[in-house]
Amino acid sequence: MSEFKIPEKMKAMTLVAYDQLKLAEVPVPQPGPGEVLCRIKSVAICGSDPKMIHGGYAWTNWPPYYPFIMGHEWAGQIVALGEGVDDFKVGDRVAGEAHVGCGHCENCKQGHYTVCLNYGKDGHDGGLDMGHRHYGFYWQGANAEYNVYKTSALHLIPDNVSYDVASMADCAGVAFHGVELAGVTPGGTSVVIGPGPIGLCAMMECKALGSGRVIVVGRGAKLEKARELGADVCIDFEKEDPVQRVLELTNGRGADEVMECSGASDSPLKACKMVKKAGAVAIIATYHDQEASIPINIVNFNEIKIVGSKANPSTTDAVLNFFSSNKIQGEKLVTHTFPLEEYEKAVDVFEHKKDGSIKVVINP
Amino acid sequence: MSEFKIPEKMKAMTLVAYDQLKLAEVPVPQPGPGEVLCRIKSVAICGSDPKMIHGGYAWTNWPPYYPFIMGHEWAGQIVALGEGVDDFKVGDRVAGEAHVGCGHCENCKQGHYTVCLNYGKDGHDGGLDMGHRHYGFYWQGANAEYNVYKTSALHLIPDNVSYDVASMADCAGVAFHGVELAGVTPGGTSVVIGPGPIGLCAMMECKALGSGRVIVVGRGAKLEKARELGADVCIDFEKEDPVQRVLELTNGRGADEVMECSGASDSPLKACKMVKKAGAVAIIATYHDQEASIPINIVNFNEIKIVGSKANPSTTDAVLNFFSSNKIQGEKLVTHTFPLEEYEKAVDVFEHKKDGSIKVVINP
Amino acid sequence: MSEFKIPEKMKAMTLVAYDQLKLAEVPVPQPGPGEVLCRIKSVAICGSDPKMIHGGYAWTNWPPYYPFIMGHEWAGQIVALGEGVDDFKVGDRVAGEAHVGCGHCENCKQGHYTVCLNYGKDGHDGGLDMGHRHYGFYWQGANAEYNVYKTSALHLIPDNVSYDVASMADCAGVAFHGVELAGVTPGGTSVVIGPGPIGLCAMMECKALGSGRVIVVGRGAKLEKARELGADVCIDFEKEDPVQRVLELTNGRGADEVMECSGASDSPLKACKMVKKAGAVAIIATYHDQEASIPINIVNFNEIKIVGSKANPSTTDAVLNFFSSNKIQGEKLVTHTFPLEEYEKAVDVFEHKKDGSIKVVINP
Amino acid sequence: MSEFKIPEKMKAMTLVAYDQLKLAEVPVPQPGPGEVLCRIKSVAICGSDPKMIHGGYAWTNWPPYYPFIMGHEWAGQIVALGEGVDDFKVGDRVAGEAHVGCGHCENCKQGHYTVCLNYGKDGHDGGLDMGHRHYGFYWQGANAEYNVYKTSALHLIPDNVSYDVASMADCAGVAFHGVELAGVTPGGTSVVIGPGPIGLCAMMECKALGSGRVIVVGRGAKLEKARELGADVCIDFEKEDPVQRVLELTNGRGADEVMECSGASDSPLKACKMVKKAGAVAIIATYHDQEASIPINIVNFNEIKIVGSKANPSTTDAVLNFFSSNKIQGEKLVTHTFPLEEYEKAVDVFEHKKDGSIKVVINP
Repeated sequence: MSEFKIPEKMKAMTLVAYDQLKLAEVPVPQPGPGEVLCRIKSVAICGSDPKMIHGGYAWTNWPPYYPFIMGHEWAGQIVALGEGVDDFKVGDRVAGEAHVGCGHCENCKQGHYTVCLNYGKDGHDGGLDMGHRHYGFYWQGANAEYNVYKTSALHLIPDNVSYDVASMADCAGVAFHGVELAGVTPGGTSVVIGPGPIGLCAMMECKALGSGRVIVVGRGAKLEKARELGADVCIDFEKEDPVQRVLELTNGRGADEVMECSGASDSPLKACKMVKKAGAVAIIATYHDQEASIPINIVNFNEIKIVGSKANPSTTDAVLNFFSSNKIQGEKLVTHTFPLEEYEKAVDVFEHKKDGSIKVVINP
Repeated sequence: MSEFKIPEKMKAMTLVAYDQLKLAEVPVPQPGPGEVLCRIKSVAICGSDPKMIHGGYAWTNWPPYYPFIMGHEWAGQIVALGEGVDDFKVGDRVAGEAHVGCGHCENCKQGHYTVCLNYGKDGHDGGLDMGHRHYGFYWQGANAEYNVYKTSALHLIPDNVSYDVASMADCAGVAFHGVELAGVTPGGTSVVIGPGPIGLCAMMECKALGSGRVIVVGRGAKLEKARELGADVCIDFEKEDPVQRVLELTNGRGADEVMECSGASDSPLKACKMVKKAGAVAIIATYHDQEASIPINIVNFNEIKIVGSKANPSTTDAVLNFFSSNKIQGEKLVTHTFPLEEYEKAVDVFEHKKDGSIKVVINP
Repeated sequence: MSEFKIPEKMKAMTLVAYDQLKLAEVPVPQPGPGEVLCRIKSVAICGSDPKMIHGGYAWTNWPPYYPFIMGHEWAGQIVALGEGVDDFKVGDRVAGEAHVGCGHCENCKQGHYTVCLNYGKDGHDGGLDMGHRHYGFYWQGANAEYNVYKTSALHLIPDNVSYDVASMADCAGVAFHGVELAGVTPGGTSVVIGPGPIGLCAMMECKALGSGRVIVVGRGAKLEKARELGADVCIDFEKEDPVQRVLELTNGRGADEVMECSGASDSPLKACKMVKKAGAVAIIATYHDQEASIPINIVNFNEIKIVGSKANPSTTDAVLNFFSSNKIQGEKLVTHTFPLEEYEKAVDVFEHKKDGSIKVVINP
Repeated sequence: MSEFKIPEKMKAMTLVAYDQLKLAEVPVPQPGPGEVLCRIKSVAICGSDPKMIHGGYAWTNWPPYYPFIMGHEWAGQIVALGEGVDDFKVGDRVAGEAHVGCGHCENCKQGHYTVCLNYGKDGHDGGLDMGHRHYGFYWQGANAEYNVYKTSALHLIPDNVSYDVASMADCAGVAFHGVELAGVTPGGTSVVIGPGPIGLCAMMECKALGSGRVIVVGRGAKLEKARELGADVCIDFEKEDPVQRVLELTNGRGADEVMECSGASDSPLKACKMVKKAGAVAIIATYHDQEASIPINIVNFNEIKIVGSKANPSTTDAVLNFFSSNKIQGEKLVTHTFPLEEYEKAVDVFEHKKDGSIKVVINP
């Protein structure tokens, strides 16, 4: 019998139309077989959240229906188990992944469950669930007091990691997927462009994997944050040409790998120009400018490898461990917290980088 | 509505005790959610089958109960769908994998579902199925007219591939997993030791992946079969020293990779001696001699990579394609077929290599 | 003592200024320590040759001086050995690589000798040679009766491969490097865009590495050649939309990997649109349109890996083996041969694709 | 003009017969083209040194002649340049690699220069040097005041790293090669068996590459040293069963990777038993017991990958960086230093682990 009393109704922040949010009282969902009910303790706001609120993901059908409960970077506590669950127990502190694959398509079977071939299949229509779930995008998310999850979305939080920090596991995991795809050269030189939350995580992850020197390209408060968190060299792109500077720092050779986390239109080109021949560039950002592109001749001529990271397959345990060992200094990334009622204000602070905000976390 | 009439009872070959097989009439199973019912058309006998019959797998609890229906290398036709199945349809011709992972453990999420961490959990005890299934070993198998499978175990058979050939997909897939783990050097020299069914598949797979020359080490009828199927060089180990011969053929340098498929106690050592420095050896066989071993100094001194292949994660589509394009000449591997009633005779022919048998297939 | 009489003077086709070629009589060079003198039998014209003649590589300082002997895709016979050479002997039939690394920089030590960090260092100025050699671009090439090479540039030609075919080893090797970097999915679907010499080699190489189906996108005579050489599906981009067609052929999933060999400005984008999520695109072409680019959001959103192949590190033995086994049908690629005296005519036939030309070879 | 006065004669510790060492006065060697002369500052004693002194490498022809100057783990200062050297300058502080490949064989071209196919060719017989050099084993080593090296053997020492610490670059590099071949699971569990110099380096390298927890198996002073240097868990194999303990610590799952650095006969088997299914075991030790072996069934059944590390291709810059950043705490590894005259005493202290010795360094 559960030690937790579970109410019938809960507060949830719902999106009812583009740019229209409404705090609602809705039923607490019930966990089915292989699922658990979680009390949501912390939900971090991701760059995709304001974009979805403003209608920027209409083309990919996010959200799939109204009213919709968003929120995909979260941590909380298991308060009830569905049938058959034996890998977690009530009371466990857990952090969530946004993606759960169908488990039976070719991609899922090969471990690429964030690019599941059954994405968007059945699901919230009440039919049997044989498809993929994308919590907070295409399936009910965490901006509420409770939510139900499949256990494959869950990871135990180390004791010394707070819920607020653990809620960044998805964010840090997306960065880590890109860092792993590009590869880190032990003892080598890595560059991170764009010291926002993703970029700051990428910087600390490069160091955690043995990079000898991490150079961060940015400006203002975020660049200062990078310095505070251990960047070896900081380049203010308003004051000096980052390509020239990286080439100087590497004796003309270029960096071993570049993690592009800025989303600025001209950053992918800069990344290609500052990386060494046969080096790697990870594209971890998305671009408002749909024309943003990489000139292709340099890719061929310098034999650059370019990889993209949109999601975080099988990275969550690693980043939770990095939080625990302080290789990723999570406490320094969470600059603001708000109750669920102040979600709109929180989004405003995050979206417009007010008050030195890096990562803004909601506590429902 | 299904075009197929499904009877209530079916014939099944059951293991009732070590070395005791009994043809029984049992209920046709019903497919649950995400499952399908298949009419079994062909089941190939694997080297592990006689071993299990004789009690050789008591230590790993195979079979888990009596009477048990064995059989894991199979092909057949879907005759009924369980709830929610939309990736297959009734009438589809399919080949099966022996393993279906739990889908929610760390290994499954990374694509290593044949080494699922929930192997052996719940399952045939009537509880909710959250674990791994190993058809024919730890879960009801294909030595019967019908069996139920999760769709993740199934792959469409190309039109020009027969059920008999397709039933070897698991066997060819285990070989292919080893071949992929070792890696094939394009244009290089590969060696296959032991031209049994696994070894013959490995030989043709090495060629399909661009090996420049495949040397097969064996003797007798199986070595002749290797020659017939396209081995570039055949070494009869009763007539010449295979290590010396491989070194001669490679100007003293050694082969790029060796696939050890013989199960002979001294073959792993020979493999290490005939592979080049920094080459790779795949151990695809199992060994009756529990003391069979690899001397460790040569592994260190020559920087040899050794890999093991026990199962076939995500290899089935590739080998079915190879059957279809005749890169694996499947028809030439199936030397004998028997009806289900003659299973014991079939095992005898296979196990004792009677009558030039390579692969023996049952048609239930 | 050599069986070959070596004259003091030889014919050479020299570039004396942009668009000015002159047949000259020049001294036969002498092999130094670790070098050999080769009688050039066949030199294939590469797409970069007319470009260099027209001054298209001024920015990278090719040629480095006048008069310059171009030609980097070649095969011939060793007629004299320099001091210390013991890995080749006089009379050996050999094919050449264009690149020889310095051997002591970080990149060379890691096997990336075509992106040697000492490229362009000393060399043709008479100083001690501690740098990289790029024969036919930055160092004297093969458009002559003789030339001197370091032995690391040389590979024995299998007996059944002609000099004309072997001269394509560099071309086939550049394609193969791209194919290997992208990776070929065994039994999967590969696309090759642009069935010129590079693309036709890439197509046959995909098949040699186990691709289940190679789709070629092109038009006219070259597309017909692709069909003749074994393309599984041919898409005439003037008659149908290749992106749509590839998606149809793969049930909406996309190809496993795409080799972009066309150099058309819009092909990289098409490649990204027709490849599956988490698939790979190899950029093996160069682009006259300096603005040719890849829109970056799709790289991130679909987690596409993009690789570039400019050169051919350690691929020559593999492609020579493929020529020998007819996996690359070399004889069908050489459509025209000319004597050295008719070099300008040969370039014209090649450059303007006259008379169904695919690969044009000079016999000095 | 050099700032250094170079004498004509120097002191050298020479091996004149098995177990016979003699301090001699010999000519200072002259650097040839591409070579430099180094003043040796520090030479660390490797486990292979006493073995060679006692005649344990007769089978591989080490040393190749008498009197022979051993010593391959060294650091020093460049005091003179040979012809053509422009990547280093007089005064540079450098650490050495033991291996320099021929640069023109297939293995060297692919980056595997420590398994050069021209190992042992020409060299010290006065002929032209087209082969491989193995300093201190097959070519004159560093147990002297001076020695000549090819520049490809050299790496700049970061300013904050002492010669004594830098002399361990080869030792740390061999460990690192094994660690890289096995792979480190970010946030995962690694085991190191045998906390000698190699094992202690491996332990710190696992942490530098992001391991979440490193378990060390050993006993006595060396295990205490491991604890001091940051081992997360220490298992005294005299007090508890290391296999059982590792399984307990990983909930029965096994470690992600095991680095076997002990050389004890039964350690490879233990490593296989404590590693997870589909995990990796690196064999970094060598074994006095020629019968030491790995039972092969477990390799197959658990799909374990086994790799061997004998040498250190392209690892030196990484480990020097790790020394500089104190990821490898080099100062704590050098427990003893001796002048060249006391080499025999130094070997005795090292070989018999006297006085808590870990790494013993000679200062010629």
